Amino acid sequence: MRQRISLVTLGVSDYARAKAFYEALGWSPAMDIEETAFFQANGSILVLWSRAKLAEDMGIADDGARWGGIALAHNVGSQDEVHQVIEQARSHGAEITREPSATFYGGYAGAFRDLDGHAWEVAHNPGFGLDGDGNVVLPTS
Amino acid sequence: MRQRISLVTLGVSDYARAKAFYEALGWSPAMDIEETAFFQANGSILVLWSRAKLAEDMGIADDGARWGGIALAHNVGSQDEVHQVIEQARSHGAEITREPSATFYGGYAGAFRDLDGHAWEVAHNPGFGLDGDGNVVLPTS
Repeated sequence: MRQRISLVTLGVSDYARAKAFYEALGWSPAMDIEETAFFQANGSILVLWSRAKLAEDMGIADDGARWGGIALAHNVGSQDEVHQVIEQARSHGAEITREPSATFYGGYAGAFRDLDGHAWEVAHNPGFGLDGDGNVVLPTS
Repeated sequence: MRQRISLVTLGVSDYARAKAFYEALGWSPAMDIEETAFFQANGSILVLWSRAKLAEDMGIADDGARWGGIALAHNVGSQDEVHQVIEQARSHGAEITREPSATFYGGYAGAFRDLDGHAWEVAHNPGFGLDGDGNVVLPTS
């Protein structure tokens, strides 16, 4: 198994609402077909799809929990950008679960949950670089 | 907000066990510090971290559910590779939630859950290309 995350699929209860939320945050799908939106990210692709169909397709019984212990992170270049993204998410109905503040690792972060409860950290981590494509660059040991 | 997933953090209950599982699948952390493993993937970084610390850091109350409606996908170049990865995961204790089989979209996929329940689809999708880095290439519309 190669070190690769091809897609991250977020199961959603209301497809149109979920797509509108991500579009309001500035995302634009490269494909939108049969109530499935594919957003080209950096290498990986973010997908919105019916949560019921996703669970069935994966062979997973779904008890409807909004948190299964997975967090996505969106790293940005400054503390100001952390505030900007958090305010943008808040203005479109996201729950802010962490107001922007200093982190234990010397960075600065806020966090929100999208309308289906999927959790995003918005972080500025001066210990990690960001390359020209916005990818995190891990420090070399 | 740019279209970017910087990190995907999987909250785990037993750090050593989780890291050993991913290492057994062939992943190797670029950083392993304070019981946090960072695996460089394609653009994104996969992180293993204490689920309790993750929930606290994100401001999220955790009821311990193993499925919150998020699936990761690992796309491969052939049906044989789907079987290989699924068998590798099975041999290291993963629960296979979908035995490899044809998909509704004309591909072929299996699915497993890691030792903390995080769900991976292993898919061959002939409708999507894979570039030289193994990234999915969405068809141009």
